[in-house]
Amino acid sequence: MATKLKDPGVGYKSNKGAQRMIVNGESNVKHINKPKSLDDLYTYLIGVSWWLFLLYVLVGYLLINILFAAVYMTIGVQDFMSSTGNLWEDFSYLFFFSAQTITTVGYGAIAPNGIWAGYVSSLEALVGLMSFSFITGLLYGRFSKPKAKIRFSKHLVVRDFEESRALMFRVMNKRTNLMIEPELNAVITITEKESEGQFTRQFYDLQLQRNKVMYLPTMWTLVHKFDDKSPLKKYTNQELKNLEVEIYLLFKYHEQAFNQQLYQLHSYDFSQLKINYKFGESYRFDDDGFTIVNHHALNQIEKM
Amino acid sequence: MATKLKDPGVGYKSNKGAQRMIVNGESNVKHINKPKSLDDLYTYLIGVSWWLFLLYVLVGYLLINILFAAVYMTIGVQDFMSSTGNLWEDFSYLFFFSAQTITTVGYGAIAPNGIWAGYVSSLEALVGLMSFSFITGLLYGRFSKPKAKIRFSKHLVVRDFEESRALMFRVMNKRTNLMIEPELNAVITITEKESEGQFTRQFYDLQLQRNKVMYLPTMWTLVHKFDDKSPLKKYTNQELKNLEVEIYLLFKYHEQAFNQQLYQLHSYDFSQLKINYKFGESYRFDDDGFTIVNHHALNQIEKM
Amino acid sequence: MATKLKDPGVGYKSNKGAQRMIVNGESNVKHINKPKSLDDLYTYLIGVSWWLFLLYVLVGYLLINILFAAVYMTIGVQDFMSSTGNLWEDFSYLFFFSAQTITTVGYGAIAPNGIWAGYVSSLEALVGLMSFSFITGLLYGRFSKPKAKIRFSKHLVVRDFEESRALMFRVMNKRTNLMIEPELNAVITITEKESEGQFTRQFYDLQLQRNKVMYLPTMWTLVHKFDDKSPLKKYTNQELKNLEVEIYLLFKYHEQAFNQQLYQLHSYDFSQLKINYKFGESYRFDDDGFTIVNHHALNQIEKM
Amino acid sequence: MATKLKDPGVGYKSNKGAQRMIVNGESNVKHINKPKSLDDLYTYLIGVSWWLFLLYVLVGYLLINILFAAVYMTIGVQDFMSSTGNLWEDFSYLFFFSAQTITTVGYGAIAPNGIWAGYVSSLEALVGLMSFSFITGLLYGRFSKPKAKIRFSKHLVVRDFEESRALMFRVMNKRTNLMIEPELNAVITITEKESEGQFTRQFYDLQLQRNKVMYLPTMWTLVHKFDDKSPLKKYTNQELKNLEVEIYLLFKYHEQAFNQQLYQLHSYDFSQLKINYKFGESYRFDDDGFTIVNHHALNQIEKM
Repeated sequence: MATKLKDPGVGYKSNKGAQRMIVNGESNVKHINKPKSLDDLYTYLIGVSWWLFLLYVLVGYLLINILFAAVYMTIGVQDFMSSTGNLWEDFSYLFFFSAQTITTVGYGAIAPNGIWAGYVSSLEALVGLMSFSFITGLLYGRFSKPKAKIRFSKHLVVRDFEESRALMFRVMNKRTNLMIEPELNAVITITEKESEGQFTRQFYDLQLQRNKVMYLPTMWTLVHKFDDKSPLKKYTNQELKNLEVEIYLLFKYHEQAFNQQLYQLHSYDFSQLKINYKFGESYRFDDDGFTIVNHHALNQIEKM
Repeated sequence: MATKLKDPGVGYKSNKGAQRMIVNGESNVKHINKPKSLDDLYTYLIGVSWWLFLLYVLVGYLLINILFAAVYMTIGVQDFMSSTGNLWEDFSYLFFFSAQTITTVGYGAIAPNGIWAGYVSSLEALVGLMSFSFITGLLYGRFSKPKAKIRFSKHLVVRDFEESRALMFRVMNKRTNLMIEPELNAVITITEKESEGQFTRQFYDLQLQRNKVMYLPTMWTLVHKFDDKSPLKKYTNQELKNLEVEIYLLFKYHEQAFNQQLYQLHSYDFSQLKINYKFGESYRFDDDGFTIVNHHALNQIEKM
Repeated sequence: MATKLKDPGVGYKSNKGAQRMIVNGESNVKHINKPKSLDDLYTYLIGVSWWLFLLYVLVGYLLINILFAAVYMTIGVQDFMSSTGNLWEDFSYLFFFSAQTITTVGYGAIAPNGIWAGYVSSLEALVGLMSFSFITGLLYGRFSKPKAKIRFSKHLVVRDFEESRALMFRVMNKRTNLMIEPELNAVITITEKESEGQFTRQFYDLQLQRNKVMYLPTMWTLVHKFDDKSPLKKYTNQELKNLEVEIYLLFKYHEQAFNQQLYQLHSYDFSQLKINYKFGESYRFDDDGFTIVNHHALNQIEKM
Repeated sequence: MATKLKDPGVGYKSNKGAQRMIVNGESNVKHINKPKSLDDLYTYLIGVSWWLFLLYVLVGYLLINILFAAVYMTIGVQDFMSSTGNLWEDFSYLFFFSAQTITTVGYGAIAPNGIWAGYVSSLEALVGLMSFSFITGLLYGRFSKPKAKIRFSKHLVVRDFEESRALMFRVMNKRTNLMIEPELNAVITITEKESEGQFTRQFYDLQLQRNKVMYLPTMWTLVHKFDDKSPLKKYTNQELKNLEVEIYLLFKYHEQAFNQQLYQLHSYDFSQLKINYKFGESYRFDDDGFTIVNHHALNQIEKM
């Protein structure tokens, strides 16, 4: 008999059409009344795409220079340079002066001459150094806190296997370096209709034949056999297709390039299930005896 | 029978009115004769609030520039610029020169001209780069060594539960990302009066029904059942209210945004105990089937 | 009987002449159709030799200055300085101006004077700060994410040992600091000919007499005894010599200088096997009673 | 009976007067023929005292500026400024120019004017930025890779304890923050004379009554009871005093301020043993009920 698990913080009740709580490895839960903090900003800037990150830097650079140029304009152009007589040209030159100050280039062709000009530019230089210190940290953080780069196969398959049936899926590393001590744990939730509009959700550990290896150079096919302890054994292939199931996976391994333990969450539901299919070959040898891994082959399945 | 623990470094004796040793996750112990070290400064600057941190930077910047301006004044204004004739104006300009040097802006409108002016400004530029290197490290350290952001419910409740009673409390993540492999361990100390002015303090592990899950998207209610092994079973609800108890909790989980194992300590005493209350709903679904977590709901309890 | 392992992601089939999948601790697997990402660039720059790294920095510095000098040339020399009348000299001076801008030196002898000159040089200063932030991160990453520096003995030996035979090899730390809690796990694959052109590959755990110690100050000789559970017991010394065997090793320890858990993979095949040899002394004492470790002695073996 | 351990890489043989292999938590082993690498430089600079580190920075700054000043002198003073007519004054001004270039201050009062002056100063600015990137990394590394700050009591005591005897020692945290999940493991080596000039060294695990706690706010007394499994039981107190013994300890805990698992090695020998002494009180309460830890009290022992 399959052993039921205690609720891992998500409740036994369910309404049909509930969204999966993990999608693409990220939480799909909505938070309300969450207090904001500066750490959230850092976490956000670590997580955004490179294009967005560079855009933020550029826009921030423009805005802060416009701000300081306006302050310098208020102090008076003559405290920095002889006025060109043209307001917008003067503003541009003060914008350049601001940029030269905040980046600490400081050519000196435009230079502060006066008490207020001196104090504000001294402050701006400090603001500049602090900002670029922050950006240095962000850049390092973006590179050195890598996300686990595990790809999970698009489909789950159920097929006959060793006098029984088995559920299989496949993972591979997006990087070329070896994954060290990869381990995968799985939980399955099965929702069954009890009466009109009422559903019961049960949680089970999903036992995998081998869920930990020493290192992984290629792909890895994970196998859940429908033995007596499997919560899926009692369903026919046809029933499986219609079953409301969510599988939550936690993959962890040591990433050698970063000396870090990385984790990745993933989830499947049975809309991704293929019955009586098997996965294509995960590697082959070339003429020199080298093992070849084709990253396009991860999702290849074949009718049995 | 509940098993007594050995003293975890805090002694069996107690005097009434003793302070909890952990308050808000921080040590509440006073240290005397502790040798100071530079590491303590770093740890302090990593830990202070952002406002205080920025204030320190600003004040430090002012002080170091005043110091160098004074040195440059001693060397002589004429080695940097032609004197304005006004002492305070000269000092201001040398202050600006110092700021331009320490930030490496170096406009050059004011520039060292003379051997001592040259040496001291060369030193100040080095001091500046070292200082901002240090601040870069501090900023990165502040952001990249996050504290665990677990909120614990304000109250403990004791209620009837599965033909017995149970002690419950609730935790949630202040962040929006998933907590991976959260685990919670608990120790309880019970102090009983033995004779006039004498108290005995005993330590026990506080067994929780499920103290580890794979991931946690919402809130998590921890349950200590008053079974035969519970050190609380022998007390009636009324006795519990007056019992001198401290509960020390250690929460750990893997923080995905930072790839780090985070720990958080917390403590309760029984002034936070509510008898025959239960916690409000920890999540609900919206019309699109998304799970909704309301951060205000953590502390909601209801009379049973 | 030796227990066969499930395939750790590398398949049971083999063709004679297949390459080892781990060589010098790195994956020897070829990847095709692998999508590239910016993280790969970072990983690459973290991993290249110091000479190559410095070469990249120097070449990048030259190229970016040539690029900006060309842009400034297009804007017009007169917007930066009075032309020398010689095209290549003008270009050189704009190259210097670019270098002074991107490094934020900004002497000012050459300085932007004009709207476009101002905008482009403001952009270049930003590019410069971003680039050096990136290089700061790379340098720190190169130093602070150390590779495990374990040296494995060149040879494996098989010798008589405690009324049986044993396979031995030896490891040592390339650093002088202590390795803390070193642990070594081993897998062995044995390939046997079944019929013409068909080979079967089997995987076994390779049991080591003691595979974990508290700390390691000197060298460490690992011993696999040919007991009843050994997959090598059934082979004579002569058969061992001709056996197609790969041994994959995973060494892990805590590196004290970096507070990090380090891992190192290694592989042997039996072309490195020496029969009836033993390892030389791994340490000796000097006259003051100090333990002496000779790094040249790791590979010393003696005929028994 | 006490169970003998396999040799943890240090051999069974010993000569009288052999030095302990761990002294003050550092390896006391001498390495010969060890190849040097750049990583060793980084590790060294991370480990040296602050005074030495700052001295290296200052001396390096002087030397590199003298070097570049000499190169600029060779190029010719007139390519940077009008000569003062005094050789040493000219050299000083070029030294200042070098300092202004390498720190990227670049006032511009002295500025390169000429092709070689331009190229060399462009290179020096790059060298400067790379150097200060490196120093930024070093500073951060020095602060963020903290050593475990455990103090071990100066003495070991043996005293009567629970109808038997026990060996005790005491540890405390040099920091004020809590140690989380501290754990201590111990190995003991006992050397006995066999015949003239021959000694046998045996290794045993040293069992501690409680070697792991959840958190540690104060001091912690570790207790090894002389039960039937103790390798020390067979010796009288008088024999213990003359026994040649080394105890190697590995302490690990999670450091909350740095989110890191820290390790510290320590060793004792029996010249530090006190018979029939006990440790003084490890903490007391003040009038407000706060727990007080006196860092001077760690080594206090009292005759029983």
